[in-house]
Amino acid sequence: MGNVKNKPMIGIIMGSDSDLPVMQEAAAILDSFGVSYEMKIISAHRAPDLLFEYCRSAAGRGIKTFIAGAGGAAHLPGVVAALTVSPVIGVPIQSKALNGVDSLYSIVQMPSGVPVATVAIDGAKNAGILAVQILAVGDPTLLEKLAEYKKSLEKMVIEKAKLVEQL
Amino acid sequence: MGNVKNKPMIGIIMGSDSDLPVMQEAAAILDSFGVSYEMKIISAHRAPDLLFEYCRSAAGRGIKTFIAGAGGAAHLPGVVAALTVSPVIGVPIQSKALNGVDSLYSIVQMPSGVPVATVAIDGAKNAGILAVQILAVGDPTLLEKLAEYKKSLEKMVIEKAKLVEQL
Amino acid sequence: MGNVKNKPMIGIIMGSDSDLPVMQEAAAILDSFGVSYEMKIISAHRAPDLLFEYCRSAAGRGIKTFIAGAGGAAHLPGVVAALTVSPVIGVPIQSKALNGVDSLYSIVQMPSGVPVATVAIDGAKNAGILAVQILAVGDPTLLEKLAEYKKSLEKMVIEKAKLVEQL
Amino acid sequence: MGNVKNKPMIGIIMGSDSDLPVMQEAAAILDSFGVSYEMKIISAHRAPDLLFEYCRSAAGRGIKTFIAGAGGAAHLPGVVAALTVSPVIGVPIQSKALNGVDSLYSIVQMPSGVPVATVAIDGAKNAGILAVQILAVGDPTLLEKLAEYKKSLEKMVIEKAKLVEQL
Amino acid sequence: MGNVKNKPMIGIIMGSDSDLPVMQEAAAILDSFGVSYEMKIISAHRAPDLLFEYCRSAAGRGIKTFIAGAGGAAHLPGVVAALTVSPVIGVPIQSKALNGVDSLYSIVQMPSGVPVATVAIDGAKNAGILAVQILAVGDPTLLEKLAEYKKSLEKMVIEKAKLVEQL
Amino acid sequence: MGNVKNKPMIGIIMGSDSDLPVMQEAAAILDSFGVSYEMKIISAHRAPDLLFEYCRSAAGRGIKTFIAGAGGAAHLPGVVAALTVSPVIGVPIQSKALNGVDSLYSIVQMPSGVPVATVAIDGAKNAGILAVQILAVGDPTLLEKLAEYKKSLEKMVIEKAKLVEQL
Amino acid sequence: MGNVKNKPMIGIIMGSDSDLPVMQEAAAILDSFGVSYEMKIISAHRAPDLLFEYCRSAAGRGIKTFIAGAGGAAHLPGVVAALTVSPVIGVPIQSKALNGVDSLYSIVQMPSGVPVATVAIDGAKNAGILAVQILAVGDPTLLEKLAEYKKSLEKMVIEKAKLVEQL
Amino acid sequence: MGNVKNKPMIGIIMGSDSDLPVMQEAAAILDSFGVSYEMKIISAHRAPDLLFEYCRSAAGRGIKTFIAGAGGAAHLPGVVAALTVSPVIGVPIQSKALNGVDSLYSIVQMPSGVPVATVAIDGAKNAGILAVQILAVGDPTLLEKLAEYKKSLEKMVIEKAKLVEQL
Repeated sequence: MGNVKNKPMIGIIMGSDSDLPVMQEAAAILDSFGVSYEMKIISAHRAPDLLFEYCRSAAGRGIKTFIAGAGGAAHLPGVVAALTVSPVIGVPIQSKALNGVDSLYSIVQMPSGVPVATVAIDGAKNAGILAVQILAVGDPTLLEKLAEYKKSLEKMVIEKAKLVEQL
Repeated sequence: MGNVKNKPMIGIIMGSDSDLPVMQEAAAILDSFGVSYEMKIISAHRAPDLLFEYCRSAAGRGIKTFIAGAGGAAHLPGVVAALTVSPVIGVPIQSKALNGVDSLYSIVQMPSGVPVATVAIDGAKNAGILAVQILAVGDPTLLEKLAEYKKSLEKMVIEKAKLVEQL
Repeated sequence: MGNVKNKPMIGIIMGSDSDLPVMQEAAAILDSFGVSYEMKIISAHRAPDLLFEYCRSAAGRGIKTFIAGAGGAAHLPGVVAALTVSPVIGVPIQSKALNGVDSLYSIVQMPSGVPVATVAIDGAKNAGILAVQILAVGDPTLLEKLAEYKKSLEKMVIEKAKLVEQL
Repeated sequence: MGNVKNKPMIGIIMGSDSDLPVMQEAAAILDSFGVSYEMKIISAHRAPDLLFEYCRSAAGRGIKTFIAGAGGAAHLPGVVAALTVSPVIGVPIQSKALNGVDSLYSIVQMPSGVPVATVAIDGAKNAGILAVQILAVGDPTLLEKLAEYKKSLEKMVIEKAKLVEQL
Repeated sequence: MGNVKNKPMIGIIMGSDSDLPVMQEAAAILDSFGVSYEMKIISAHRAPDLLFEYCRSAAGRGIKTFIAGAGGAAHLPGVVAALTVSPVIGVPIQSKALNGVDSLYSIVQMPSGVPVATVAIDGAKNAGILAVQILAVGDPTLLEKLAEYKKSLEKMVIEKAKLVEQL
Repeated sequence: MGNVKNKPMIGIIMGSDSDLPVMQEAAAILDSFGVSYEMKIISAHRAPDLLFEYCRSAAGRGIKTFIAGAGGAAHLPGVVAALTVSPVIGVPIQSKALNGVDSLYSIVQMPSGVPVATVAIDGAKNAGILAVQILAVGDPTLLEKLAEYKKSLEKMVIEKAKLVEQL
Repeated sequence: MGNVKNKPMIGIIMGSDSDLPVMQEAAAILDSFGVSYEMKIISAHRAPDLLFEYCRSAAGRGIKTFIAGAGGAAHLPGVVAALTVSPVIGVPIQSKALNGVDSLYSIVQMPSGVPVATVAIDGAKNAGILAVQILAVGDPTLLEKLAEYKKSLEKMVIEKAKLVEQL
Repeated sequence: MGNVKNKPMIGIIMGSDSDLPVMQEAAAILDSFGVSYEMKIISAHRAPDLLFEYCRSAAGRGIKTFIAGAGGAAHLPGVVAALTVSPVIGVPIQSKALNGVDSLYSIVQMPSGVPVATVAIDGAKNAGILAVQILAVGDPTLLEKLAEYKKSLEKMVIEKAKLVEQL
């Protein structure tokens, strides 16, 4: 799984396969921008050694930015941020009892020195866009595509607005 | 720092030296029960390799139970629980903006398979008592001391009650 | 109900039969580790005398650790902790209106002197594992089993990861 | 401590002497209405046997209604309600980290069959008034006094309003 | 609607007919204790004059205690408490977006001088029991019935416990 | 107190004199726009008859819009809205234990048919501006003044920005 | 879409077509009062230039008051308030994970100088009534209609009450 | 104010001069990494036209990433994100009544298509580090400096740990 014809630039990881339906929205955005990625399930709590290996080897494989999704006591993004100097984007997954407030607080309230770039609860699509924006800082072609994407968002709003007015 | 005349049985760790005033209440309880311990500052986010080493070597040093305090995105207790099969007691430290609700959720809402025994926000004293209770499962002398401690709590309440009634 | 071929070592109790589906996950874990237990419904509010008797006689029956589940104004674990010197593990049951935030606060925010080892909302499975970890402090065979269990968790994550990568 | 020239009709209890400054406001109201009471510190967690004895003997001493204040995992009012058939008024005491939200939820979210009449966080004065209202159901003189008290509240508001208008 | 063979002693009111399924549990309890009541829909916000008339005339009709249920900005119990000197029991109804936290805060956080005896979210059954407890302060027969009710609760718990043990 | 050279157009009311320091910010804004007002302390809970009279007579005195501030179980704005067809602006006052979350929910979550125009916690200044905006719908001079006020806000931001840049 | 036989007086806008079912309740109320309006989808985040144009041109088209609905990081009402001096009524739309608490806080907690008149979560109907109340400040016919509407609310409550009493 | 010897690469903006003490921590980090920036006060609500101009001209001035801090209904980061395709880092400023929960929700819960990379409440220092991480994706020298910074964090923790052990 993953768009790896080119060396992967983004590492999408998640703590559990139940996070997959949400996290695939990040992958879909990267596909639509033609950004290569790899997608893996790696638990901070159930497979900590694997996570260490994964993070420490990622830069060597070409990974420039991480997108990490987790729910509940959502430690995955923070532990990745502890193990790398690349930007880490955190996606709080909506949890059963606390609706993702636990996931959000566990991801966003990181201590000084180790940031996680947090998006909305279940906001994997925006995590994908943010990853593209980060790569686009050094890639004018990608920046151009983002400008087109922004225009397409506006156009979509205008079209929906017209439909509503025709009601 | 630590009561290590005997081989330490309890490992008290915390993410930051600002947690020390709270976490020392755990140490004080262990001292009062004559339970040996070591106390260390080890950050899950700022010194992850050290934390790995510490947890993996702890059983060999005789550590039977961990007490881990952390605030905000409080990952320390959960990461320790991922790296050991001994009981891990988590102390949510009161944080500045969110008053420790973030710390509590980050510590207590652990995923299936990796429990953290969570006590109250800033409840380091109770973490110490819980550690003694755990050791006492296999140590009748310690169990005896706990029974005495429980009686002393009751006596203290009765004495305070008398003072109030004399007002 | 209960695995009592051997004298029970763990007392699983809950306030209401509606808590049973959640609390059985604790029993299932104890079964899988071969740890004996008894499981009972005892309400702190509707049958306080029974609860007193139960707690005061438990040590004599061989109970070493309690697992108590309750929802709403979830006083059961705290009252058990008041009546025993053994470790008490509290399971906040998800409630209807407040989603278990009430249960969590009522269980975890215990006063100094009387700890309850709190796990996640509906986290009965982790309560079972924590009970095993506590017994394993004095039981090398059980410690060994926990190490195997931890490896099996890691293996399960790796296998799921492979399935995802094959998609 | 307590207004016991007459046999006490109201039992004011609290879990800790730190609750005394708040709970004395209940006593002050009872004094102003000439309602007899006793005031005690009895911890549900640190002196459960005493609490049992106290509750079970209270009716015999003439107690008609209880006012119980507690903070954090505030089990005292609920345990009293479990041990008596008289009305129990619960006062959630403001706690340090969670500002009394924990106290409020622990007191108000009681299960079916065992109500606690909960007032505002730190609302001991209103607990006293509610106790008077309850006694006044069967006491026309007290009902008269309550009507006068209500008029005095209105008069006080009118006087304050005038002072403000003169500014 | 209401059990008015005898002059009604309890006034059950609610802000909206959508609150009826919850509030009928209060009526059912009063029926089971043989306590007379009247049940009405009276909105604090949509029919304030009616509410004034109702509250001011209630004592004359024999009403000794009110049970008022409301959701959202749940002002009904507080306004009733402003207009009477009888005990007012407030039932926070679970609301759609905020799950009844809004209802609970609006009812329980009353200012000094005007208490509302608040029960759990959707706790109408307990409101009924509390009303019986209040009347029982001056009615030994009712007190006896409450003692029997308490025993029946205990018996029910014991029977459920047996069923669980037979599983 | 109040700017009543002209017949008052805005009625500023509050439940307690402790709300006065916050509510005076509404008066100050009305003064600065030359809008006449009256300011009164009228409690929904302690002086309900006065509140009825006040609201019912207000239109006759020329009041076009109300600004009502209250804290805790903040019923004042909602009860005013029940008694008038003029716009009612609600100001949630920051409360002690719950920081104004109780005030906010009690004011904003009004049922269908009876709106309260709610501003921020302690947002009395904005309540004043909103009252001016409402009057300005039918008063071009006032609309002009609002446009000037808006420009002055922008100018103030620009000047502060310059000061910061000179640092 | 919109009642524009007459020049529109109210501008109803929303950030997304998913907000339409809620926001149409505002339109329905305006229709029932014969108040003209226009209804549009304009996103603060996806079509900011359109929003600027819309707000800046609205006064010229006759718009006197805005009703803006948005969910999540609900910036639409606040940005409209920044761009106009007319009253802006904000409707917090219930969101998926946080149930509209995010929408409510994002709309109501506006800074000094730029108020948004906030109604309940999903309270679009009340937003419509508030808009009518604002116009009615300068329109006696509309004020009359509001008084009739208020009476109809009361009548509806009385009729429902009768139905309940006949049960 | 700002480190502009070189063309600024990072735009630090905030809604109010009261946010300056927090936001300067972002500037201090950029200074320590030798990354050029400009720092401005621009209010989304009080100076929307200026904000539009600023955002639209920023790319031309060389700005690659924004850091935007705001409190309460904290719309600034989201509006900037609407007006640019560069990464926007949002810093929720701790607010008075709601402690920054309002700021956090207003910033992080952005709709699909327009992400804001949110850091902890008052986490301006981490916002600065994240901005450096973003630039470092295309700048090996900066990546090297980040690796050194990470080592210095670890060293600091080790030294503090030693001090604690010497106690």
